[in-house]
Amino acid sequence: MPSEFDIIRQYFIPTESRADVILGIGDDAAILSVPEQHELVQSVDTLVAGVHFPLETSPQDIAYKALAVNLSDMAAMGAEPAWFTLAISLPDADETWLKAFSESLSKLAQEFNLQLVGGDTTNGPLTISITINGFVVSGKSLTRHNAKVGDKIYVSGTLGDAALALMEYQGQCLVQKESLVYLRERLNRPTARIELGLLLREYASSCIDVSDGLLADLGHITERSRVGARINFEEIPRSEEFNLNLTDDALITPLILSGGDDYELCFTIPLDKQNEFETIIKEKNILVTCIGEIEEAAGVRCIKNNQVVDVKEMGYQHFTD
Amino acid sequence: MPSEFDIIRQYFIPTESRADVILGIGDDAAILSVPEQHELVQSVDTLVAGVHFPLETSPQDIAYKALAVNLSDMAAMGAEPAWFTLAISLPDADETWLKAFSESLSKLAQEFNLQLVGGDTTNGPLTISITINGFVVSGKSLTRHNAKVGDKIYVSGTLGDAALALMEYQGQCLVQKESLVYLRERLNRPTARIELGLLLREYASSCIDVSDGLLADLGHITERSRVGARINFEEIPRSEEFNLNLTDDALITPLILSGGDDYELCFTIPLDKQNEFETIIKEKNILVTCIGEIEEAAGVRCIKNNQVVDVKEMGYQHFTD
Repeated sequence: MPSEFDIIRQYFIPTESRADVILGIGDDAAILSVPEQHELVQSVDTLVAGVHFPLETSPQDIAYKALAVNLSDMAAMGAEPAWFTLAISLPDADETWLKAFSESLSKLAQEFNLQLVGGDTTNGPLTISITINGFVVSGKSLTRHNAKVGDKIYVSGTLGDAALALMEYQGQCLVQKESLVYLRERLNRPTARIELGLLLREYASSCIDVSDGLLADLGHITERSRVGARINFEEIPRSEEFNLNLTDDALITPLILSGGDDYELCFTIPLDKQNEFETIIKEKNILVTCIGEIEEAAGVRCIKNNQVVDVKEMGYQHFTD
Repeated sequence: MPSEFDIIRQYFIPTESRADVILGIGDDAAILSVPEQHELVQSVDTLVAGVHFPLETSPQDIAYKALAVNLSDMAAMGAEPAWFTLAISLPDADETWLKAFSESLSKLAQEFNLQLVGGDTTNGPLTISITINGFVVSGKSLTRHNAKVGDKIYVSGTLGDAALALMEYQGQCLVQKESLVYLRERLNRPTARIELGLLLREYASSCIDVSDGLLADLGHITERSRVGARINFEEIPRSEEFNLNLTDDALITPLILSGGDDYELCFTIPLDKQNEFETIIKEKNILVTCIGEIEEAAGVRCIKNNQVVDVKEMGYQHFTD
């Protein structure tokens, strides 16, 4: 196995540098400049092979997902992504794999003007741990703790696609051949909603990304904000491909409510900002859907056919831990 | 296994918060404030069980070392440590282990006023990846690339202890019972030279921490600074315990020159600052030793008994990768 330094130098050192990276990879640490009047937003997410993605996942998809789930945390905070560190454990130094992985990682990083500033490669079972950094103008970050009674609840994109792709992958259901590419892309290459997150800083009272499932993640908002929520099942946005391939209601409900892995944003908009928000969202052609409202009574209630869905009965199990 | 959130909440959330942590663990990311006129210094280091430490290492020592090697990177940059994120993979959620690990981690963090601001626990072989953050007044960081011909080369503390402890551990040599505690502590609980690093910002032209061995790490300085170095073997500081337990010259030389894992600082001081530096170091009672000089000719030469040591012949193998 080539040395750590060789691997980092050969595959991971970025060819172009952001102006705020005073010193990049190659010293004991990177030296970075956070713009004045801004706060640093920092988060860490790890993917373990066989736990967070199937062992057979392509290096391109693994790299994409590892960075995208971290970018999604920046989106949920309303942060502008800037830099990341990568700690990667590799069972061996397979050059073809490393080349594919690093190219995919670099491509996604460039798309968001994100620079790798620190790396550590170790020998071990495939594990990718990324710490991502972004900025927000001081005091403007989106958090989970400011939702207020009466705020409208929204989600971006559509929910359930990633969970359906995983079911298909695990042989628990069949999907039409034409839908397979779309659904697998939704599982392996989640879209970090950075543009939406930046926009939401002016409108949203709270925000989270849907990684553990809508009910669980909205539950984090209500718990931290000391409020409750009511959402309408029929209003939760689903993709055409989802509706086309899944008609068994006993499967649809848990996938939509607890499926997770879609990395869409769930957020709350105060009533007095709703009109302006809806106008600008239409102008920018971003898909968001109002699915309910913040209430006083604690907990998250999902109404379906005029009845509250009993969540505990669903028993949906994530592939991820 | 308890959920990730439970583990983080139960074992890792700090009880006290630094004033510059606007929002700590519990949201999609932490919100942090870097002081004005300061740069952020960031680094990542990973320890894998069985690769970077023997499987039988105690949870206290693993936690200590995982944080100390990251603190050492801050010391080498002259940075004041501030925050860190922790990504930990655990084969199981052994409560006794977790409690011992987190207590040791917290204790060392508190000692340096360092706060955990992000965590991710996953299921997998024991791996600890820490991204550490510190500050330096803008432009004042220590780097590897400013050593100049004529600068004096120094190291802190003593070298070779950690490598000797590892040899003993691996059954390759015997040491006296009275030395064992000291030597194992040097291997498992390296002292990050933060105070010295902060002081060096006013004096040193370059700095690195000795993790891969003196020759290799000094080689990083000379390579990045486009200079060379000559060091005198007899002047390299060794501990009493090292001298007491190792008398075979064929072992002493490689351990001192390539042993690594001591996490001492190796740095260069311009000649015109040497007197002032030596005075303040004596006042503060910090052990540093001048071991050589930066020269024009590329490469690192170690002189022993008036001859250049042939490094390639040594064949010392690290336990670490």
